[in-house]
Formats: sequence, structure tokens, C-alpha cells
Amino acid sequence: MTTASAPGKIILFGEHAVVSGATALGGAIDLRAKISVRDLPGSVLIKTEDLMLQGFSFDLTTGRLTCAQAAYATRYISAVLKEFDVRDMQVCIESRLPAAAGLGSSASIVVATVAAVSRHQGQCLSLREIAEISYRLEKKVQQGLGSPVDTALATYGGYLQISQDIRPLELPPMKMVVGYTKLPHDTKSEVKKVQELKKRHSDLVDPIFRAIGALSEKAVPLIKEQNIAELGQLMNINHGLLASIGVSSRELEELVYAARGAGGALGAKLTGAGGGGCMIALPGADGIEPLMVSLRQARGIPFKVQTGCEGVRLEGDL
Amino acid sequence: MTTASAPGKIILFGEHAVVSGATALGGAIDLRAKISVRDLPGSVLIKTEDLMLQGFSFDLTTGRLTCAQAAYATRYISAVLKEFDVRDMQVCIESRLPAAAGLGSSASIVVATVAAVSRHQGQCLSLREIAEISYRLEKKVQQGLGSPVDTALATYGGYLQISQDIRPLELPPMKMVVGYTKLPHDTKSEVKKVQELKKRHSDLVDPIFRAIGALSEKAVPLIKEQNIAELGQLMNINHGLLASIGVSSRELEELVYAARGAGGALGAKLTGAGGGGCMIALPGADGIEPLMVSLRQARGIPFKVQTGCEGVRLEGDL
Repeated sequence: MTTASAPGKIILFGEHAVVSGATALGGAIDLRAKISVRDLPGSVLIKTEDLMLQGFSFDLTTGRLTCAQAAYATRYISAVLKEFDVRDMQVCIESRLPAAAGLGSSASIVVATVAAVSRHQGQCLSLREIAEISYRLEKKVQQGLGSPVDTALATYGGYLQISQDIRPLELPPMKMVVGYTKLPHDTKSEVKKVQELKKRHSDLVDPIFRAIGALSEKAVPLIKEQNIAELGQLMNINHGLLASIGVSSRELEELVYAARGAGGALGAKLTGAGGGGCMIALPGADGIEPLMVSLRQARGIPFKVQTGCEGVRLEGDL
Repeated sequence: MTTASAPGKIILFGEHAVVSGATALGGAIDLRAKISVRDLPGSVLIKTEDLMLQGFSFDLTTGRLTCAQAAYATRYISAVLKEFDVRDMQVCIESRLPAAAGLGSSASIVVATVAAVSRHQGQCLSLREIAEISYRLEKKVQQGLGSPVDTALATYGGYLQISQDIRPLELPPMKMVVGYTKLPHDTKSEVKKVQELKKRHSDLVDPIFRAIGALSEKAVPLIKEQNIAELGQLMNINHGLLASIGVSSRELEELVYAARGAGGALGAKLTGAGGGGCMIALPGADGIEPLMVSLRQARGIPFKVQTGCEGVRLEGDL
């Protein structure tokens, strides 16, 4: 058996503005997808274990129970198996990442599967090759959509600065809390909405995007110096600017204000495309626990994470 | 007996940015303060009737019941009575405006009192004189703070564009809903907080203020053409920009998203200094009622208002 795991990701600053050329900052998080493969003569079987399963549906005519999230993971894994011409394998997925939440769950599944399958076949792909293949496959499954950021973070880990190119940054890890609204997000429609707003009101949206880009750049030295009070304030500003272009929601605001209020967070913002999905919060002096409680109370699902964690890696035999 | 009434106000666009020179747009609303004065030989008595009273306190040592809001109104009326050297008068206040909510309640009380007292003494002040005296008295009671906008709107009614100077605009009335969070707001501390943020991050706050100023100017032709769909979108953008500079709150966001969601509003934003106070919402195709319900459900107090209404006026004898 060969096992590989890859991290999820959060966007710390700059989502949406990055689509129009502003700088963004992303970080890998230690919620990982783990893929184990083993020989299974004569057939291909994809098994899900400990996947955060939601959205089961039961088809009365066929008597078949299907799970949207397992189907979703299966689509990505099938694309990898096809790429590597696999015909005799059992693939087992474990993931701590909620799907369609903007945490790069599909990218981490693709990257971990590429790493596990290629190594099981005796190949030694470089990280660069893993990232390239994974990006190509993710894009194919998403029918042309998707950015290289998620697969790059799942592959290399750490932090990435994204503008015209994608550049790794040497920055220390940070403890944060991710709050999941339990609403799926739809990157495509959120991006489209924002780009349409920009077309109609470029005199408003252009300066907002420039301010967001400036935030991403100001954040880097603050993370380096661990000036988290100031960093939190920049997160709050970024969140408001995202709300101004229409990508926040009642559920996201509830979590953001719960975090800043009773949760004692130094800063909180939505992360990723918005609408639904997740927000992130930087713990204050009282630490992580009040933040976890406040997000649960505000009907979210909180995850403790560390940013800037390791990228794809092979795991010891289970 | 002589009776005068004056309207409250909302800021439609541009609060906070106007402090730094950007354009703002304010409108009078048909929630009015009414002041009736009559001779009362030998003494001065201030009576409150139908005032939205909140925050009573009972002093155990003196056995005296005091009401913060009545005390607040009394301070402004006393200043007017002193200005006009009144010694024998009963003044009766009725107001539909919540105090300290950012709706210009003190300005409307001062303006209506100046109008009623001066007329009762047989003087015929011009609107300009009423506005000037009222602004001077409001500023005195607020110990130097306060802008001429509230007293100007209470005096002239209609709409005002505020930048270097204050300019009346000819615009049609609009039906809106004001949602009161029941939290008092503190203009002074909110303005100070924003100005401090601007000092530390002028490269972020300056473009945000410029975008807010641009919104105020774009709004004028939309109100003229009654293009309320587009106007609502600008309100939403303005709200996010205000949130980005830290003047929103959980309670305001709850009302804003309730209005935009179940309330069917075309747009919703906080109005005035923020923190607490009020938000405003532009009704959608289903009209005012769903908006009233959604704001009540979100723990706010909704008021139906019409913007751009008449300024100070003498009322017929009761």
C-alpha cells in the first residue's frame, strides 16, 4: 500500500481582486486529504472513509444510496486513475476537508492521488510535475475553470503570493480558526457576479481591488514579524471590502461578528469566493477556545488550523 | 399656543468619508419632532408627551424618576429658552424620533423649538436664521461637536449634498424603511476610530473614502430617474465600505442582511456614524411590509419613512 496526503488551503488576503491582477496571499492548512492505494487485481474500487459526508440522496427507483460529496471526490480520483492508466487498484480516501467550502478539498484530493498513484507505480515525480499534472486534471474535471493556486498550495504547502505569477513566501506558521457556514459556495457564480459589477462600476470596483491588493502586500511583513494585532485589522478591512462587492452573506457575517465579538478574534474575514463557504479568524489573547465556542454558537462548524503547513507527502504504511 | 415641527434625517451616502472632504448625501425624513409652547406666567416647564422614552432611572435617595431621553431633550430645549430669554413658558415635546440613533433627533428638537419660541414671541425668523441659530445652539450643547447638516436638514427639509459646502438638491421623495438597532450610537468615538485608522493606513482608507464620495455623486441622477434597483446596489457597496473601516456591528449586519434577504430590499446600509444606531433599506418589488417584518424578526425597530420631506413648519393650533 502507498499513502500520500496533501493539505487544504485558505486565501488570507486578496480573493476576487486577484482575478483582475491584484496581489493575493494564500496559505496551506493542516486539514489534509489522505489517499491510500493498493493493488486490487482485475478491478478499480474507490472507497471513502472518514470523509466528511453530507448530502446523501436515496434513489427510490434503483434503491441506490448516493452521496454528493463522495461522488464529487470520485470524479477527481477517476480523472487521476485515467491519467495514470490504472486498471487494478483500490483507492481509499480520508479527508478532514469539507467539500465545496473553498478550502481546496478537490485540489488536495487530486494532488494526494497523483502522488500516491505515481509512487505506487514506481515513478518518482518532482513536486513541480505533481503540481502541473494536478492542475491540468483539476481544470479538466472542472471543465476549464479553476486556478493553479489550490493545486500549488496542496503540492508545495507553505504560503504563496499570487499576482501575475505564483511565488512561494518564507513565512512562519500561524494558528487560526476556520469557520464553515455549512453553505456550499459556488466560485463560478461569485466570480461572475463580481466581474459584472466591475464592468458596470469600474470607477468604484477598481480602487476597491487596488486597496485589496495593497492589503495583501502589507500583510506579508506583519506575518513575518508576527504582528497579529495589526494583521487582524487588515483582515477586517479586507472583509468589508469583499462585502462591498457583494460576496458576503448573512451566514458569513454571523460567523465574522461572532468571532470578533464573543470569540475575541483580532480579525475575521470570509475566505475564498464567498457567498457561502468559510471564514477565517485570528485568535486573540484568550486563544482558540472562545473562538471555537462562538463560531459553534453562531451555527458554524469551526476547525482549528495551522497555516503555512507542509505540502504533499508520502505517509508511512498504516 | 404656538406649535412647530421639524423632520429627522438620514444620511443616504457618504458618512465618515465626508469628514475627510468626500461628498455625502443627506435627506430629511417624515419622522418629526413637534414642539408646542404656551404662556405659563411665572415659570418655565418642559413637558414630554409621546416621546419615545427609554432608559428610565430611579434615584433611591431623592425618590426622583429620571429618563435619559427626556433629560437629553430637555438640555437642548433649555439652551433655546435661554437664547430667547424665555421666563414664562410651558414647552411640550412630542417626537417620533428615537434619540441618539443617528436620525437627527436633537437637531429637529432644537429647530422646532427655535421656530415655535421665536414665533410665539412675535418674531419672524427666516429659514436661514433658524438654521444658523439652531446649529450654534446644538453645537454649544454638544460642546463644540456637531455638524451643520442635521440642523440644515431639519430646517430646509428635502435633500442636501454635503462636501465643502452644503447644497440643496431637487430630488423626488422616496419610500424607505429605517431599522433601529436599539443600540445608542456614539458619533464622536466612531469618527475618532475611523480618523485614527485613516492616519495609520491612509493608503487604504483614502481610496475607500474616494470610492464612497463617488457613490454619493453617482446616486444623485439615479434618485432623479427613480432607478431604485441601481441605487440599491450602490447602497450595498457603500455599506461594505463602511464595514471595511470598522463602523458596522453585529446588530447592524443582522438588520442589513434581514432586509436584503427575507425583506426583499433592493439595497440596505447603515446610516450615520454606525456602531449602533440605524440602517436604511430600499423596499423591493413586494413593498414595505416584508421589510418591516424582516427587521422586526431580526430584533430591530422598523420605521416607514419618506425621504426628502418638508422642513420646519408651523402647525395649526391643536
